[in-house]
Amino acid sequence: MEDILYMREALKQAKKAYLMGEVPIGAVIVRDGKIISKAHNMRESLSDPTAHAEMIAIKKASETLKGWRLNECTMYVTIEPCCMCAGAIVQSRIKRLVIGSKDEKAGACGSKVDVLERDLFNHNVDVSFGILSEECSSMLTEFFRFIRENKCINNKKCAMER
Amino acid sequence: MEDILYMREALKQAKKAYLMGEVPIGAVIVRDGKIISKAHNMRESLSDPTAHAEMIAIKKASETLKGWRLNECTMYVTIEPCCMCAGAIVQSRIKRLVIGSKDEKAGACGSKVDVLERDLFNHNVDVSFGILSEECSSMLTEFFRFIRENKCINNKKCAMER
Repeated sequence: MEDILYMREALKQAKKAYLMGEVPIGAVIVRDGKIISKAHNMRESLSDPTAHAEMIAIKKASETLKGWRLNECTMYVTIEPCCMCAGAIVQSRIKRLVIGSKDEKAGACGSKVDVLERDLFNHNVDVSFGILSEECSSMLTEFFRFIRENKCINNKKCAMER
Repeated sequence: MEDILYMREALKQAKKAYLMGEVPIGAVIVRDGKIISKAHNMRESLSDPTAHAEMIAIKKASETLKGWRLNECTMYVTIEPCCMCAGAIVQSRIKRLVIGSKDEKAGACGSKVDVLERDLFNHNVDVSFGILSEECSSMLTEFFRFIRENKCINNKKCAMER
């Protein structure tokens, strides 16, 4: 039940990305029942290949907690993290990861590869899949359909047209 | 020959990290024969679990080139990238990766896992290993020996004592 509420917050973040013409993925980080960090994908806006929702959320949470160890935290993310983000989740010692929808093409938490496999690295993360899965994946599908149908050269142009 | 010169620059970055009490790993990014970005690990100093040498170098290079696609670039890094950093190399479309020394415990470019495996994701990276391997690994070994022998609680304390 709680998971659904937090995932709704992650979805709100994804929606913000959507409206900016960014691939709509959102993430929130929760500690002791409180959201300590919210973020969405910003790759195009910041011209930064590392500016995925999860990465920004981790940075913000570390700033808030004044330390890089997020071992009492849970991350909620609308789409299965890529390799970079799953790796950052290990690096930051996040305790639990709740994923909305799978990413069959690039997901690194079991879909394409599994870098969160138990005992692979020096930190294990508890992973749950499928919270609000439909809403999370349909936002992405709709975004890419819009991009295709409007023959957008870059996402920003589309965002401005909306 | 060129590879050795650029790896020496990455080693200089690693040395800077060492003197700050950071795990000594350095990286540089080269485009058209010119270094466009240099960085070293800053995790402790910035209290940021994502502040590895490679991540900072990618961000800086994207700023310099005013775009997130680093497809004409080569990265030189003293130690085999972890999962997060190898994923960021894929995300940023870096063309070539030159690695000093392997990381058997956490290396994600073939040692522990191989997320740069040909055709696994939508971008392939050419990987070379073993440039100045001895120097790269001995800097790391020496650092951890110092930490152990001085029973450092955190790395910063050791840096201050040096």
